[in-house]
Amino acid sequence: MSMRSNLTSVRQIKRALGEFRDCLNLGAKQQRARTMATQTQTKESQTKHCLGMDSLNPNIKVLEYAVRGPLVIRAGEIEKELEKGVKKPFTEVIKANIGDCHAMGQVPITFIREVLALVTLPSLLDDPRFNTDVKEHARTILKGCRGSSVGSYTDSPGIEVIRRHVAQYIERRDGIPADWQNIIISAGASDAIKNVLKLLICDVNNKPPAVLIPIPQYPLYSASLAEFGITQVGYYLDESRNWGLDIAELQRSINEARKTSHVRAIVIINPGNPTGQVLSRENIEEVIKFAYKEKLFILADEVYQDNVYAEGSKFYSFKKVLIEMGEPYSSMELASFMSCSKGYMGECGLRGGYAEVINMCPEVKAMYLKAISAMLCPTVLGQVALDSVVNPPQKGDPSYDTFIKEKQAVLDSLKVRAKMVADTFNSMEGFKCNVVQGAMYAFPRIDLPQKAIEAAKKVNRAPDAYYAFELLENTGICIVPGSGFGQQPGTYHFRTTILPQPDKLKGMLQKFEEFHKDFIKRHT
Amino acid sequence: MSMRSNLTSVRQIKRALGEFRDCLNLGAKQQRARTMATQTQTKESQTKHCLGMDSLNPNIKVLEYAVRGPLVIRAGEIEKELEKGVKKPFTEVIKANIGDCHAMGQVPITFIREVLALVTLPSLLDDPRFNTDVKEHARTILKGCRGSSVGSYTDSPGIEVIRRHVAQYIERRDGIPADWQNIIISAGASDAIKNVLKLLICDVNNKPPAVLIPIPQYPLYSASLAEFGITQVGYYLDESRNWGLDIAELQRSINEARKTSHVRAIVIINPGNPTGQVLSRENIEEVIKFAYKEKLFILADEVYQDNVYAEGSKFYSFKKVLIEMGEPYSSMELASFMSCSKGYMGECGLRGGYAEVINMCPEVKAMYLKAISAMLCPTVLGQVALDSVVNPPQKGDPSYDTFIKEKQAVLDSLKVRAKMVADTFNSMEGFKCNVVQGAMYAFPRIDLPQKAIEAAKKVNRAPDAYYAFELLENTGICIVPGSGFGQQPGTYHFRTTILPQPDKLKGMLQKFEEFHKDFIKRHT
Repeated sequence: MSMRSNLTSVRQIKRALGEFRDCLNLGAKQQRARTMATQTQTKESQTKHCLGMDSLNPNIKVLEYAVRGPLVIRAGEIEKELEKGVKKPFTEVIKANIGDCHAMGQVPITFIREVLALVTLPSLLDDPRFNTDVKEHARTILKGCRGSSVGSYTDSPGIEVIRRHVAQYIERRDGIPADWQNIIISAGASDAIKNVLKLLICDVNNKPPAVLIPIPQYPLYSASLAEFGITQVGYYLDESRNWGLDIAELQRSINEARKTSHVRAIVIINPGNPTGQVLSRENIEEVIKFAYKEKLFILADEVYQDNVYAEGSKFYSFKKVLIEMGEPYSSMELASFMSCSKGYMGECGLRGGYAEVINMCPEVKAMYLKAISAMLCPTVLGQVALDSVVNPPQKGDPSYDTFIKEKQAVLDSLKVRAKMVADTFNSMEGFKCNVVQGAMYAFPRIDLPQKAIEAAKKVNRAPDAYYAFELLENTGICIVPGSGFGQQPGTYHFRTTILPQPDKLKGMLQKFEEFHKDFIKRHT
Repeated sequence: MSMRSNLTSVRQIKRALGEFRDCLNLGAKQQRARTMATQTQTKESQTKHCLGMDSLNPNIKVLEYAVRGPLVIRAGEIEKELEKGVKKPFTEVIKANIGDCHAMGQVPITFIREVLALVTLPSLLDDPRFNTDVKEHARTILKGCRGSSVGSYTDSPGIEVIRRHVAQYIERRDGIPADWQNIIISAGASDAIKNVLKLLICDVNNKPPAVLIPIPQYPLYSASLAEFGITQVGYYLDESRNWGLDIAELQRSINEARKTSHVRAIVIINPGNPTGQVLSRENIEEVIKFAYKEKLFILADEVYQDNVYAEGSKFYSFKKVLIEMGEPYSSMELASFMSCSKGYMGECGLRGGYAEVINMCPEVKAMYLKAISAMLCPTVLGQVALDSVVNPPQKGDPSYDTFIKEKQAVLDSLKVRAKMVADTFNSMEGFKCNVVQGAMYAFPRIDLPQKAIEAAKKVNRAPDAYYAFELLENTGICIVPGSGFGQQPGTYHFRTTILPQPDKLKGMLQKFEEFHKDFIKRHT
């Protein structure tokens, strides 16, 4: 009896998850999921566990994070099978699903690693093989650590001297003053984004809170909003205009959502993930005006600010544009996010990032700081990595030449790969790929034959997920189906990173093309 | 108008927070706070901010974390004043408020730092000055990292080889098998604890969820439960029995709470924070039986497992006892938490920790793993620190002697200080302090004269907070008032760490005594 009740609820959840996956405006579904959770609540005494599926946080049930979903789990299994000698039509899994630079062979920036080694093991400060400027950086950070140890807790928003360096970095970038007290260091940008979104969990005017996010989007947003029970309101990016933001679409989306919820904030990802666009200054201005008119808190995900490749594309921060627009826009509430995981450094594992939060109501900011204090502090070594990024060697410093050479080599190579990926997909029948102006991903559209769509239905998968599983099993290439990010109904996409090293990337694209031809043959 | 409405709501919040602070069974108040948030919801258009106090997440408003509360903020201000040359009756602030070992002069363990330096800067692997076993450790970890870089993302529950080392560590500790797949590595224990508590957010039998926690407690629990809207149910530890758990008190507390909520889990902190007790095996067995009878998920906070000082005290893990009790107890759901921040290593800033989760419903475990995947992975260098703790040098390894010497020196010194602190307080009139059997804190009880209680009331502070502020302003010693942890009504306590180095600790206790005499004189 207890097993049966468990299984029933698992099945219900699975069905709900399936529907959820296909769903574009996830907001409405989330409300449904909430209701569903109430309906499936059984008497706890029916199950043998104190914590069973029927008494699990319903928001956790509906939460999905496609970048690490079932496909990636299967990729991990395949890797283990290969290790055990199981024969496959390929010899390795290529993880093009995740923006994990070093995993794909990118070499760490020496300066960052040297500073990290010196602060960790200060006896190395006497070692003549390290440059004096590296030592100077390490000493400055250690002076900012209690007891001169990176093993001490720091203030919850981070070490003051590093927050000051972040502010100076932003000033140099934007040509506009930045207040170090507005810098909240975090364990990667994800941590910062969740901490800001969390503040918005509050009904307003008796309506549940909602947040506008792009479709396609980076699934951290859908996952976090699901976890927080905040309604997700998707606005479609315009694929025909290289994934730009269309104000009419923003208006359509907010008008629709306002019938049932209170839309409180808008998320913009620039450069775009998974879509690779770099917004023009004009487009940013339009968005800011829209957000002002609709009284929205702006969350600007700008973690790819160093990753701009296309001729004529330039990164403008939302803060710069908003401040330069003057009043009333320059008083708007804005949180901008940055990370050590992307750019040229790609230090994903170190978990360094920050939020710059401007114009926040001071009492709210005090509450925000209080809320993060219970988690004590972001990892100090992640903070140190961040310091190296925002406070790199300057011209004339002994480490400068190597630093610039390494940084430029990564960015140049990414630029070449961005073009290679888009060009290759565009040369393939049934593919259409926008220019990868920035970030680390291509998000091509594919035509899937009707027979493939039917085959997918039979195994209870979204068509693009079916395609991605076939690709994985036949070639070892792991991508993320477009349904994990959201897409216009009836269209199919996938996200691939541009991160495999050039030779491997070339091979991957070749294998991809062969697979695709075969797939089409098998499904027509 | 907009300002006034803001201020009113701030005042309301402040009042509510004051009441909250004094409250022992915070559960009922949390419900109140929830209601209050609804009442104070004003029309969003009344404020100039999109996110004002009236539309802020109400759970964030009521959340408190005393270890970093107003007293600590004031201590930071005083430090800055001292730097600027402001004259005070003392020359430095002694932060006895937080278990921050290195900040108080504890020296890092060389082995941990060397492994960290080598994985961060693998060119050091060629350096003859590092021992071969350190290099071996570093190589094993790097082999477990994608692309052999600590800059890559790991699996969300951590690097497999480190999870395996954790499992082996637990096996050695308990003499009982541990499954590496039950080990979820986290950014410090706090992260792991929150991720498990989060699963419990679900009404059961139409009653809101509740969790039993000790009073006094470590405020991460009250803060997290407040954030999650889970009702906190306090059970008093028995001060007269060295802060042991009394089953009759557990029963009283759960019976009371069950009238309005569904109690789903029990938190035990052993060795105790802030109370320093080490539970006997018998006491643990009683608690397990109680949890079984009441169908409670057990959360065992065991981060101080290496910190046991008193003659006759011994650490038993809840897992060991539960498994050795056999069925039906050995099938109970249990999460046990460990950290790199405490013990002899004190690497708070590196954010390493783990949860061992046993007997969890498999479908729930899958959801748990899914939920943490959106945060990608815990900091890799925190994971590396954890590896060094669970997989230290073995007898015969070149680094063994130094490692053991350093480890033992820290633990021996803590043992001396634990006794020194309790003995000194017990020698002071109006103080009563239990033996500090373990952990890093003393939680003495103090008698406060009526005049002090009245003076506190006048400045709108809890009497123990008033005392702590007076202590801080007069001596620079920063402690945490007992009201931040909870205490029996009408009793007053504070928590001080035993972490200042012996000489400084001696000086601190002397200053404390002088202050106390003067305080009593001024308030009688």
